[in-house]
Amino acid sequence: MYREEIKVLDCTVRDGGLINDHYFDDKFVREVYKAVSQAGVDYMEIGYRCSKTIMSPDKFGKWKFCEEEEIRKAIDGIESNTKLSVMVDVGRVEKHDILPKKDSVLDMIRVATYVKDIDKAIDLVNDAVDKGYEGTVNIMAISKALDNELDEALAQLEEESRASVVYIVDSFGALYSENVQFLVEKYKKFLKTKEVGMHGHNNQQLAYANTIQGIIEGCNYLDGTIYGIGRAAGNCPLELLMGFLKNPKFDVRPILDVITREFIPLREKMEWGYLIPYAITGMFNEHPRSAMALRKTESKDNYREFFDSLSPANLD
Amino acid sequence: MYREEIKVLDCTVRDGGLINDHYFDDKFVREVYKAVSQAGVDYMEIGYRCSKTIMSPDKFGKWKFCEEEEIRKAIDGIESNTKLSVMVDVGRVEKHDILPKKDSVLDMIRVATYVKDIDKAIDLVNDAVDKGYEGTVNIMAISKALDNELDEALAQLEEESRASVVYIVDSFGALYSENVQFLVEKYKKFLKTKEVGMHGHNNQQLAYANTIQGIIEGCNYLDGTIYGIGRAAGNCPLELLMGFLKNPKFDVRPILDVITREFIPLREKMEWGYLIPYAITGMFNEHPRSAMALRKTESKDNYREFFDSLSPANLD
Repeated sequence: MYREEIKVLDCTVRDGGLINDHYFDDKFVREVYKAVSQAGVDYMEIGYRCSKTIMSPDKFGKWKFCEEEEIRKAIDGIESNTKLSVMVDVGRVEKHDILPKKDSVLDMIRVATYVKDIDKAIDLVNDAVDKGYEGTVNIMAISKALDNELDEALAQLEEESRASVVYIVDSFGALYSENVQFLVEKYKKFLKTKEVGMHGHNNQQLAYANTIQGIIEGCNYLDGTIYGIGRAAGNCPLELLMGFLKNPKFDVRPILDVITREFIPLREKMEWGYLIPYAITGMFNEHPRSAMALRKTESKDNYREFFDSLSPANLD
Repeated sequence: MYREEIKVLDCTVRDGGLINDHYFDDKFVREVYKAVSQAGVDYMEIGYRCSKTIMSPDKFGKWKFCEEEEIRKAIDGIESNTKLSVMVDVGRVEKHDILPKKDSVLDMIRVATYVKDIDKAIDLVNDAVDKGYEGTVNIMAISKALDNELDEALAQLEEESRASVVYIVDSFGALYSENVQFLVEKYKKFLKTKEVGMHGHNNQQLAYANTIQGIIEGCNYLDGTIYGIGRAAGNCPLELLMGFLKNPKFDVRPILDVITREFIPLREKMEWGYLIPYAITGMFNEHPRSAMALRKTESKDNYREFFDSLSPANLD
């Protein structure tokens, strides 16, 4: 009863890297790659490709830049049918950072953008597709997009871009199932020649549920991360998503293994998942940055005060 | 944009008691009662009422029995409009354990039953309603109910019971939104004179999402627990549910306060929430008891082995 068109993308290292400034060691990245390969996951996003002239290599680990030789080192000798992608941020990459496909181990370039930067995103994704990659455009902070601007962006993407997938990115973990339904319907209305993707955040424990809702509405590209790792409350847990999808090509057990070996110890050192400050920013449809800052202070569990600080009643 | 008919029931102490054999101290129960009262929650379920002749008081704390004087002591002096309920299990209570309403602080008796015991449940709930209480029937393990037997039970409940609410209880945390949709539709088809209730479990991080799905389909009685406490993976987090419901009578802040003060320290001592073994029993539509047992052993994080032990491929 599965839908063959559905592709699962693991973005463990990429979105998880937002917690530790992309300082994962090679062993961890290899273990993740091995696990998703054995599990039959379609794509793995191994990090960002940023320009070192724009983002300083002194401030970020190597998975912020994903240089070809670093990727090759991490995947060397591991048998895999899993395609590799990197994410590029509008404004943080230059076209010459993307090599022609024939010189790269990458298969897909995903362009992250806000609605307002859609022209730049189209320019970037078209460059990547012209170089031989699969290309996607991932519209971030979708829960704050103005309806008329989103309509225009989607119309432009259909008309002008050579991306094969356009993603709904619930950056703030603010969407409810009804919103997902509304957005996928809208995307599909405009994007007649492209697939729709879903990337959830788990602030309100809805990343997985919203991904299922996306599947029901026709999304065929689905993001997940192992044990839900990712910025703040994290993402749709890959292991749950694989439990839902009935495609016989998937095997969840290598994912369970790597959770036992790598993610349980890691969770002792790095914080992500359901925590009240992230739930609060989700409820208020706000970026989690204020909650992430709070978690680094002694007031990290002063939830009422944090709630009040975001409450519209207390804003001018 | 809220629906006035919606009632929220907090079952923190009752379902949470399944983790610690109902040994909560009075201070904790008072703090919960105070918080839900200030938050405007409609009902609080304070425990089970079991017969001491059936369940041994040596093996369980007082909230397994909820004697009237114990409840009175716990709520004494706290201003509240929150109604009180207890749960009774078919086979673990005798009718004389339920006093006439005029001699009790309780407002509601909720009868927990499996489909097969529906006759006994109807007998119990009718006795409670005749004594002056509101009565509900909560059908447990609904994800394993045979369709024809459930139809018959619902028809009987409509015909013969004086319960005002019949609940969907996803004991195994196995339901997906489509199942909730199917079940609420079915309940509403049979239960023309009763409300439908939703009680989720969070094995697959879907308790809250399924409760929202229930609301969309017309459920008006919704269970939640503070910080999602409850057996195994726990329940729908009350704080999230209150964030979703727009009824101006609710104030989530007292709930946030009590999480800070009571639940963060408690979580260090008691385990509940998203853990892989509970996700696995949810995926397999099994009671979490095997996962709960696993968590008490040294193999508690051997997920693959546990998965294989439940896999149909390894069963006769």
